[in-house]
Amino acid sequence: MKNKRILSDDTPNHVGSEVLISGWVRARRDHGKLIFLDVRDRTGLLQVVVNPAVSEKSHSTASTLRSEDVISVIGNINKRPDKLINTKMKSGSVELEATEIIVEQKAETLPFDMGVESLHLELPTLLDYRSLTIRHPKIAAIFTLQAEIVDAFRKIAEELGSTEVFVPTIVASSTEGGADVFSIDYYSHKAYLAQSPQLYKQMLVPMFERVHTIAHAYRAEPSVTTRHLSEVTQIDMELGFMEFDELLDTLEHVGTKMLQIASEKHKDILEMYGVSAPLIPAHIPRLTLKETQDIITKRTGRDLSKEQDLNPEDEIEICKWAKEEHASDFVTITHFPLKKKPFYTHVDPKNKELSLSYDLLFRGREVLSGSQRVNDYKELVNAIKSRGMNVSNFGMYLQAFQYGMPKEGGFSFGLERLTMQLLELGNIREAAVYPRDMERVDERFSKKEIKKKS
Amino acid sequence: MKNKRILSDDTPNHVGSEVLISGWVRARRDHGKLIFLDVRDRTGLLQVVVNPAVSEKSHSTASTLRSEDVISVIGNINKRPDKLINTKMKSGSVELEATEIIVEQKAETLPFDMGVESLHLELPTLLDYRSLTIRHPKIAAIFTLQAEIVDAFRKIAEELGSTEVFVPTIVASSTEGGADVFSIDYYSHKAYLAQSPQLYKQMLVPMFERVHTIAHAYRAEPSVTTRHLSEVTQIDMELGFMEFDELLDTLEHVGTKMLQIASEKHKDILEMYGVSAPLIPAHIPRLTLKETQDIITKRTGRDLSKEQDLNPEDEIEICKWAKEEHASDFVTITHFPLKKKPFYTHVDPKNKELSLSYDLLFRGREVLSGSQRVNDYKELVNAIKSRGMNVSNFGMYLQAFQYGMPKEGGFSFGLERLTMQLLELGNIREAAVYPRDMERVDERFSKKEIKKKS
Repeated sequence: MKNKRILSDDTPNHVGSEVLISGWVRARRDHGKLIFLDVRDRTGLLQVVVNPAVSEKSHSTASTLRSEDVISVIGNINKRPDKLINTKMKSGSVELEATEIIVEQKAETLPFDMGVESLHLELPTLLDYRSLTIRHPKIAAIFTLQAEIVDAFRKIAEELGSTEVFVPTIVASSTEGGADVFSIDYYSHKAYLAQSPQLYKQMLVPMFERVHTIAHAYRAEPSVTTRHLSEVTQIDMELGFMEFDELLDTLEHVGTKMLQIASEKHKDILEMYGVSAPLIPAHIPRLTLKETQDIITKRTGRDLSKEQDLNPEDEIEICKWAKEEHASDFVTITHFPLKKKPFYTHVDPKNKELSLSYDLLFRGREVLSGSQRVNDYKELVNAIKSRGMNVSNFGMYLQAFQYGMPKEGGFSFGLERLTMQLLELGNIREAAVYPRDMERVDERFSKKEIKKKS
Repeated sequence: MKNKRILSDDTPNHVGSEVLISGWVRARRDHGKLIFLDVRDRTGLLQVVVNPAVSEKSHSTASTLRSEDVISVIGNINKRPDKLINTKMKSGSVELEATEIIVEQKAETLPFDMGVESLHLELPTLLDYRSLTIRHPKIAAIFTLQAEIVDAFRKIAEELGSTEVFVPTIVASSTEGGADVFSIDYYSHKAYLAQSPQLYKQMLVPMFERVHTIAHAYRAEPSVTTRHLSEVTQIDMELGFMEFDELLDTLEHVGTKMLQIASEKHKDILEMYGVSAPLIPAHIPRLTLKETQDIITKRTGRDLSKEQDLNPEDEIEICKWAKEEHASDFVTITHFPLKKKPFYTHVDPKNKELSLSYDLLFRGREVLSGSQRVNDYKELVNAIKSRGMNVSNFGMYLQAFQYGMPKEGGFSFGLERLTMQLLELGNIREAAVYPRDMERVDERFSKKEIKKKS
């Protein structure tokens, strides 16, 4: 082939020239003698017009094309008449007049129409056909935005002097206590999948003071909700020589800035989903759990005096308050009861029942949690014992504290949660390319069982 | 505290001022009445001088300080006399004269001297005390360089128009065949840890054409070598609409460029390890496996005509050749036997026994492998069947090919391997913060057994 492939968004720079483009057929429209093809590549869509008067053979090939066929097209780039310019497409000022069409790979008949603007599928169908549905531009956009959130996070972390680390996910014991842990056959031993990179990021504070990691975390929660997955991507950061107030400033800076950067860079994706950019006031409202509960009681009349945490409807209510009273899509909640928090959480020196912990809520849901940590070796040993856990399971972790650990703390964002909340998706499964839950690893277990039986 | 902490590398900008610094005691030297402290923070070392004539109390505190104690020091930044300037330290033109020392956290007595320039420890000791040894500047430097390699990779991937993706590690079946897979109790089902992100990165080609991911990969290899780990970090990339020659150009570009960027940015670390920057000629020598074997036979007299792959000594030999003949630390080997490669590897159209596969060798060891892939659905189904694997285990993977997959291929670097080879470390375990192998998950299993019994 004499031509080198160009991308669809580059076509307006080639008006009057012969080019080669490649991609997937997104839609075919037959208009009398003309056939129009929308061809998708990684930069967007391009309209191809196939005129039998230009190439009889191309027209005959085009008439057999179906959605998702992979094709290459050679032809001339023509300017579109002004009234036919499509400002929604990067290539919308031009079209490609085909002189040759090469079918690279045929697609089977699709189970549903992929050419529509939005796929209105039930979630199980969306996921049963995941390797197909992720091709839809509106679905792919979720993951473009997700990549951008992570990229923005890393840039902010670098500005803060943090170093990226790569921590293991196979661990010797349940890191945070609790039963919701997956076990592995590890040679002749038992090992576990990390519930979070928590302990490792703390252990690495003495190496770099400030560390961050994009990590997999595993939760064997035996429940199906719209906001939990069995395998999640966590955005984690831990900072040494930092205390509670500065930790709060830092998490709010990181959390708001990364969503702001991603939103500004991808206004088109927010528009596609009909959502606005996050509301970020100069100061994020910051409340203790007690203050939060009082506000909710005042607004709703619900008695929360016995509650140790916020439930989903409380999170929604306090976010409504933050938006109404502070024009903020974010609210920080602090000072959760110590006994509800993991062993490494620092006690509130002003109230032994409470902890120096925090959650960040965004648009009605928790997207971050964290705390100042216990950094004294003996206190940490006592904290482990007081939870009924075995100190000997924490040997390598405790070693980091035996040899001098500064005051430190950190926080952890759920990447799928952040993505879900930013685009206001209905279910967290939409924000993972291949979500894991108790009913599904790619294919539904129930479906596989049926397959096996038949 | 009235002062805000400054970092050690910033102290030369504060000559004549009172400052607060915080960090770990790296060494204490008593010189008559004066005590000198080397204090380490995330930017480097600072010399603190404690003079009883300036502060009796500080001197008394300093006399009790031990390695790895966490301290804050208030004092004045003084210029050092010209002849005492230490050009090896960023703060080497100044010292801090202490007026107040606050002990933030005491360290226990160290099991070995951490103040030396290099830790000459046996590997088991280095790893048994991993949460301590990673603090040593020369060990920490390994991971500074590692973070830089990944950062450079991402920048290059972005330039290539690739999108970062986050793929699951819990999988429904063994992805590459073979027995070396860890199994998980997944609710009431059996699941596995991914041996690589291979299948998922292929499945995401129709979403973004070009994707990359930094992924965990798990290999239950029941052997202990200096170059294998049970959990590794993979740098993976997959590119649609790309064929063999362009894939080779791309992997060589990515592989050499990322090591070049990391080496240039961290000349100090290469110097610390006494290694030179990678030798990168304009054209990386590119050989088929057959050509490679012929060269080795000619050089060594060893008969390799029955061999299907290179063994470690072959890798070393061909790299010697590349260095001598092409002034290259890299050599690309292509066309491995098809039956030795995973099912998704594309056959060589010129020789049905061979495949369109490649390895990149760097300084005597394979650091990358990859191939052009089978992109035709029916061929792929046949390839799976011909390996005796169950097609029904690949439902979601095959779906990506049912609905139109372009010609594509990719490659995968082992991050720990790259780091090891760049710094010429003796064992891959040195290039993972907390390495996993069959004998160890943080603590050695044998040690844990002894603990349990006692």
